[in-house]
Amino acid sequence: MDEFDFIDWIRGQTETDPDRVAVGPGDDCAVLAGGVLITTDQCADGVHFVLAECGGERAGYKVMARGLSDIAAMGGEPTAAVATVALPRGTGDEGARAIYHGLRRAGDAFGCPVVGGDVAAWDHPLLLTVTMLGRPAGEAPLLRSGARPGDAVCVTGALGGSLASGKHLEFTPRVREGIQLARDWPTHAMIDISDGLAADLGHLCRAGGVGAHLTAGAIPISPAAERAADPLAAAMGDGEDYELLFALPTPAAERLLASQPLGTPVSRIGTIVPGEAIELLDAAGGVTPVPPRGFRHHT
Amino acid sequence: MDEFDFIDWIRGQTETDPDRVAVGPGDDCAVLAGGVLITTDQCADGVHFVLAECGGERAGYKVMARGLSDIAAMGGEPTAAVATVALPRGTGDEGARAIYHGLRRAGDAFGCPVVGGDVAAWDHPLLLTVTMLGRPAGEAPLLRSGARPGDAVCVTGALGGSLASGKHLEFTPRVREGIQLARDWPTHAMIDISDGLAADLGHLCRAGGVGAHLTAGAIPISPAAERAADPLAAAMGDGEDYELLFALPTPAAERLLASQPLGTPVSRIGTIVPGEAIELLDAAGGVTPVPPRGFRHHT
Repeated sequence: MDEFDFIDWIRGQTETDPDRVAVGPGDDCAVLAGGVLITTDQCADGVHFVLAECGGERAGYKVMARGLSDIAAMGGEPTAAVATVALPRGTGDEGARAIYHGLRRAGDAFGCPVVGGDVAAWDHPLLLTVTMLGRPAGEAPLLRSGARPGDAVCVTGALGGSLASGKHLEFTPRVREGIQLARDWPTHAMIDISDGLAADLGHLCRAGGVGAHLTAGAIPISPAAERAADPLAAAMGDGEDYELLFALPTPAAERLLASQPLGTPVSRIGTIVPGEAIELLDAAGGVTPVPPRGFRHHT
Repeated sequence: MDEFDFIDWIRGQTETDPDRVAVGPGDDCAVLAGGVLITTDQCADGVHFVLAECGGERAGYKVMARGLSDIAAMGGEPTAAVATVALPRGTGDEGARAIYHGLRRAGDAFGCPVVGGDVAAWDHPLLLTVTMLGRPAGEAPLLRSGARPGDAVCVTGALGGSLASGKHLEFTPRVREGIQLARDWPTHAMIDISDGLAADLGHLCRAGGVGAHLTAGAIPISPAAERAADPLAAAMGDGEDYELLFALPTPAAERLLASQPLGTPVSRIGTIVPGEAIELLDAAGGVTPVPPRGFRHHT
């Protein structure tokens, strides 16, 4: 059973009591009654970072920034976090403090305190978890499921090459952008790009019961992805961009693109369509189906 | 740096903004503005359980029950939990599901849903984390810090031998008892016994700036501790009892002991005194100082 199957299975097991849980497992955060957003995530040495190369400070930063990115994807303001550290026995004081400083560097950038945690020593690699709480910046949290045919599909920033360039360790979670999209724009649906554009657009389309047409030439390709053998495939398939992917009515998207108010550049990459197919259209008129689970990323 | 030092150090680093965080790191839960209780905890194979002996279901139960016990210690009602699973590569479907069933068994017993989580495969032992949210059952959460000289010191259940008997894998978190103590009794301070009676009474006394006199003959010794070489030392020092230790005015304690309304037996084991010393008084008039950090438990 892989990670996706297991999470799908858990979702099927969970009966949501709407008096307590407004949105259960399956979005970037769960939403509790009263509007509390909650998300949890883990980062392990050898899986999500290589401690010997990046150091504890950047490892701590990364796990906290991933939690912040999930809050951003709901159009939320982060309010507080808790963390656990499974620390390889023999890690010195400085090593332990570096992890905490990394957690704090990410949290402090968005006014999000670390209010509790747990530390345990063991004889295995470093494993960090962060649980992040938030509250919707707009009237309601932005879910994955609200996209409608005719909506413009947009992304922040540029995509691909995050693992190659080291961006996955030092990205800025798009919290400020997510808050603006929730508060000031009629955004219908949003997700952060962690599995890769193709995969996360797949999540957004399945959640909304819609398809999408993407324009190959409109996809913003990062400098690191430009250096890949197939830059477009890197931008479509690489994971860990931590940019926002969202859908909003086309007239609003046109105003957003013209005014670019978010601080981070926004690109329109396509349009939501009826059905369930996701297709990539190139300038020569070619149509490439984008597999429903996208270009899955394997490290 | 050991776990206690690191947590103390983190506490010193955290400036608490009282508009967002009512109680920061250092109690059983943090308390956010609006009264949300939050706690996070981890359980690792080889540290907190031995997976080959107990199986995934009991491992999942344990980590969830520990979170519930922290909510109980604040006089809280659990509201929702999220979990992470770092799963040894090659764990089959059944193994993964067993963990989730264990999480659910503990949560379902107290109406606490698992609303989200993260699963990642890796080449190292199973590591589980749970973050638990709750809300105060009484007017305010019960902190460690409210004990006053003259208060009776009480515990639920019987102490010691939890690791030897397997109780540490199958304990019932004292959620219902904690709710009653918060709602129906003038409880001043409470903590759950995870580090051992001596150590956790030390935490409670230091938080309140008080000392305590314990009566050796009044300490409820579990059947498993009775089989130890020194039963009293086992009851005082063994960790992972997950019983509640609390202080309340002596007249109220006398009513509580006479009526035993909690469902779990309550024993009075001593009295809060001025100063900072914790002393154990035996029937022969002997006085044994209880070291401030207690009989620290090493596995």
